[in-house]
Amino acid sequence: MYRTNTCGELRLAYVGQTVTLAGWVQRSRDLGGMTFIDLRDRYGITQLAFNMETNAPLCEQARKLGREYVIQVTGKVIERSSKNTKIPTGEIEIEVSELNILNEAQTPPFTIEDQSDGGDDLRMRYRYLDIRRNPVRRNLELRHRMAMLVRNYLSAEQFLEIETPMLIKSTPEGARDFVVPSRMNPGEFYALPQSPQQYKQLLMVAGMDRYFQIVRCFRDEDLRADRQPEFTQIDCEMSFVEQEDVLQMFEGLVKHLFKEVKGIDFNDASAYSKFKIHNSQFGNQFPRMTWHDAMRLYGSDKPDVRFGMQFVEVNDVVKGHGFGLFDSAELVVGINAEGCAEYTRKQLDALTDFVKRPQVGAGGMVYIKYNADGTFKSSVDKFYTPEVLKTIADKFNAKPGDLMLLLCGPAMKTRVQLCALRLEVASQLGLRNPDVYAPLWVVDFPLLEWDDETQRYYAMHHPFTAPKSEDEPLLDDQSRWGDIRANAYDMVINGVEVGGGSIRIHDRILQNKMFHTLGFTDESAAAQFGFLMDAFTYGAPPHAGLAFGFDRLCSLFGGADSIRDFIAFPKNNSGRDVMSGSPAPIAQEQLDELQICLKK
Amino acid sequence: MYRTNTCGELRLAYVGQTVTLAGWVQRSRDLGGMTFIDLRDRYGITQLAFNMETNAPLCEQARKLGREYVIQVTGKVIERSSKNTKIPTGEIEIEVSELNILNEAQTPPFTIEDQSDGGDDLRMRYRYLDIRRNPVRRNLELRHRMAMLVRNYLSAEQFLEIETPMLIKSTPEGARDFVVPSRMNPGEFYALPQSPQQYKQLLMVAGMDRYFQIVRCFRDEDLRADRQPEFTQIDCEMSFVEQEDVLQMFEGLVKHLFKEVKGIDFNDASAYSKFKIHNSQFGNQFPRMTWHDAMRLYGSDKPDVRFGMQFVEVNDVVKGHGFGLFDSAELVVGINAEGCAEYTRKQLDALTDFVKRPQVGAGGMVYIKYNADGTFKSSVDKFYTPEVLKTIADKFNAKPGDLMLLLCGPAMKTRVQLCALRLEVASQLGLRNPDVYAPLWVVDFPLLEWDDETQRYYAMHHPFTAPKSEDEPLLDDQSRWGDIRANAYDMVINGVEVGGGSIRIHDRILQNKMFHTLGFTDESAAAQFGFLMDAFTYGAPPHAGLAFGFDRLCSLFGGADSIRDFIAFPKNNSGRDVMSGSPAPIAQEQLDELQICLKK
Repeated sequence: MYRTNTCGELRLAYVGQTVTLAGWVQRSRDLGGMTFIDLRDRYGITQLAFNMETNAPLCEQARKLGREYVIQVTGKVIERSSKNTKIPTGEIEIEVSELNILNEAQTPPFTIEDQSDGGDDLRMRYRYLDIRRNPVRRNLELRHRMAMLVRNYLSAEQFLEIETPMLIKSTPEGARDFVVPSRMNPGEFYALPQSPQQYKQLLMVAGMDRYFQIVRCFRDEDLRADRQPEFTQIDCEMSFVEQEDVLQMFEGLVKHLFKEVKGIDFNDASAYSKFKIHNSQFGNQFPRMTWHDAMRLYGSDKPDVRFGMQFVEVNDVVKGHGFGLFDSAELVVGINAEGCAEYTRKQLDALTDFVKRPQVGAGGMVYIKYNADGTFKSSVDKFYTPEVLKTIADKFNAKPGDLMLLLCGPAMKTRVQLCALRLEVASQLGLRNPDVYAPLWVVDFPLLEWDDETQRYYAMHHPFTAPKSEDEPLLDDQSRWGDIRANAYDMVINGVEVGGGSIRIHDRILQNKMFHTLGFTDESAAAQFGFLMDAFTYGAPPHAGLAFGFDRLCSLFGGADSIRDFIAFPKNNSGRDVMSGSPAPIAQEQLDELQICLKK
Repeated sequence: MYRTNTCGELRLAYVGQTVTLAGWVQRSRDLGGMTFIDLRDRYGITQLAFNMETNAPLCEQARKLGREYVIQVTGKVIERSSKNTKIPTGEIEIEVSELNILNEAQTPPFTIEDQSDGGDDLRMRYRYLDIRRNPVRRNLELRHRMAMLVRNYLSAEQFLEIETPMLIKSTPEGARDFVVPSRMNPGEFYALPQSPQQYKQLLMVAGMDRYFQIVRCFRDEDLRADRQPEFTQIDCEMSFVEQEDVLQMFEGLVKHLFKEVKGIDFNDASAYSKFKIHNSQFGNQFPRMTWHDAMRLYGSDKPDVRFGMQFVEVNDVVKGHGFGLFDSAELVVGINAEGCAEYTRKQLDALTDFVKRPQVGAGGMVYIKYNADGTFKSSVDKFYTPEVLKTIADKFNAKPGDLMLLLCGPAMKTRVQLCALRLEVASQLGLRNPDVYAPLWVVDFPLLEWDDETQRYYAMHHPFTAPKSEDEPLLDDQSRWGDIRANAYDMVINGVEVGGGSIRIHDRILQNKMFHTLGFTDESAAAQFGFLMDAFTYGAPPHAGLAFGFDRLCSLFGGADSIRDFIAFPKNNSGRDVMSGSPAPIAQEQLDELQICLKK
């Protein structure tokens, strides 16, 4: 071992001991008679002292050490004269008697500091240097810790971690697969799993009862910001359970993580007291909301309920006053930005510009200021009398000093637009504090989703999700397919979908019906899912599951927006690893062996 | 929840309680007045009793249940009149009052019993039924438990589990990569990792200090028996360590597994007492053997040291007696099969046939029987007098009643042949008991291995393995390359290599020299390993690592030979999953999107 202790370990109690440390030169300060070096490793920083008077050659050597040199030193632990209370080792330093350069280092292309001067591209290119920085290192430590907590929790709950194959069969349904040509079976391909969905269901048929896996999944999608072609799921499945059992189990897991990682006890009802959405009905449980309510009140299936600002629909009061836009709109809906009546023209214009951006797509925004003096000022004053504006304000439960913002148009589209506005206003008001956590279950998702482009229904979750038994008869009436609710649920925290799942169909007849609904022929269903359908004929238990996005969960607990900061070696938005230079062309021999060729 | 208890839970203490169970019908016995059903789940079996007298309709219904039906029953726990001491629930049964068929089942294609009537192919095709069998289920439970033990042990030792990418860059060195065409970067490919070797070294450069990962790896090799295209490694790396630190750390891990899983305490010296290889020098540590000794004494770099039967070289006594084969051979070497002097002609002929098989490849075998009466009988009596045979016997430390078996030929080839014979004889003598565990470190592997076919040296371990510092100067003398020893080590248990690793080169100059030795140009090394070489210029710490084959480790602890039994969904020897039918052709659209085509 090159060291007796780590750089984060020594305290006053060690004073007088001779120790050997090894690590990286964080910084060096030459004060003439003394040279101080901060030696860094994963565990912390220890100050090294070199004295020109007592050991000039060693001190000279120390002065020549560059940043990020890897060194080994031996010396005595002494008490510092000027202590640093900011770091745990700040009361001691090492009076170095031996110095050994283990490896030299070029000057790094950016500073290895909490706030680096390196831009995103440079830091990704030298990711191995970026990871040396405390924030990134702490993110990876958090990720490790969360994985351990998850595994130990689920293992104690009798879940078995079972590894499912990475080289599987390609299934066109869903997102695009990455495929892997088989050399031994020319012309044939494996696919990388988008999730272990079918295998975990097979494990339930196999009687494994409770399965989990922290598992890599792959999706060949055009990457939006903060999507990765490979990502990690906490994938879970249970037998002989109903929806309530699943929600309880995984709410328990997430509560455990909050307790251990953030010190927040969501088994204590008071932990919820600050969230408007929560009421006594939920006690010490995560609140629950139907998908319909989430869409109606927040315009999103993953509402951020750290703050209120629920949607208020005002069709009944705004229509019939001669304002054509409102009169002709399917829906007029708004939010109340409390205490924002003082917003300036400029601020309001900025919000209008925000909703008119193509990403949001609204035609415009109507505001109604409820001034502190009780008067109203709105962008539609000429259509509405103060009395009508007061009626509208009452619908919003607005008080003097508040600002109402309204959008109008087709119902679903307008809700989604208003959702964007709500989040933007909340951000401006500082209501989206990353240190505040508001978990929520969204339940009763629609089973099917209509796609205008292909003119057919798609499974909103996936084709194995069970409809609510009371809605099952609607499968026989195509005009009602959009109304069928699924036994599907998402866990949402701070407006982020961290996990989701469903009760699965375990009955072959119902599963066949579902495939037909989704436009599969018997043949195409059999070709893609035949082995799962077969398995269901040999005694499939009722089962259900859930998967968490682990990268996302880590970033949420780490208080950061980007999942890339929680992945050791992420890829950029073109799916490229700029550090290793992958993907890359391969040798012609490799192509020949695989019996494939490139299209010119 | 469909149940109040599991089928493995109920005991006499529950008598009188009303419970609900769910599970599979294992078997059904109709005794006229009574019908008994064994209900099975992952946790055990509970007997259900249906009484024709008290509830005829229910009993009739129970009689119709087929094997593997999934049912839910409610009833009272009662004490059995005739107890079954073989199962933990054998003192009670359930007097069923309600029966609910959750799912019907076709008759399974093989029996769901410990000893199934299903052949290998059938069981693989219906793997989800095979997993219902106790032996397979127990294997997967063992695997889960071992993974948890490994993770908790390493985590407590400050190792961080860090996920490395699955979509990486292809490197032609080593085995063949599986590749993944990139749609977003047409003409370019990712590779699936053969191991996270480069990434774990980068994590050391990144200062992560102690890394591990239980990780899927991929090799596109022509599959020999019991190789899988995807397999799992316990992959580890440490900074600021020397070989001794690595051996101690991972010996500690394996001792922990032995203690927890098998109840064997290898921290107690007596645990080693039955192994001939062990002597007091090693105390309570795994014995160590150099690669040269392993080859000389066992003809293998992974000797099975559960038993002795070390090789004895007899060139000095057998030569010059007119037996041409021995006289002209580079090496005459044998083993002593203790107590086997009574082997019949037939048995000896069978052994000769064994060594002559193409897989072994020897020209023949010489035997010398040291009869119980002190006389000798050998296949070379006409060349050797009893006195010479006695001298040979003495070299073998043979006693009357023993049987010596000798092979001759080129040294290395003959040793490998004798290794096969030694294992065969030991198997016949029952010396390879799967319940006995003899761990061993093999150290000082050669750094380089000559390949006749391509007429160049290859890295025996991999190109990042460091030579022993005392052998480093030999890199400058090509004639001595074969003599260079590496800081490389394997852990061997019962003749199986369960893990291996090395001290890595952390110095760029030495690494460059190594690449040149392996025939890389500067350009080809930079093209393949450039980013790692670059990283080494920014302050790489001394580091070392090791990887265990997790599938193999599980099979060893599970007392089985095949790793397939410890993989939930294995592939066959053609790399095919016969259950899902992968690999398979993919749609032309998929090929088009990837801009690749198939060779006709």
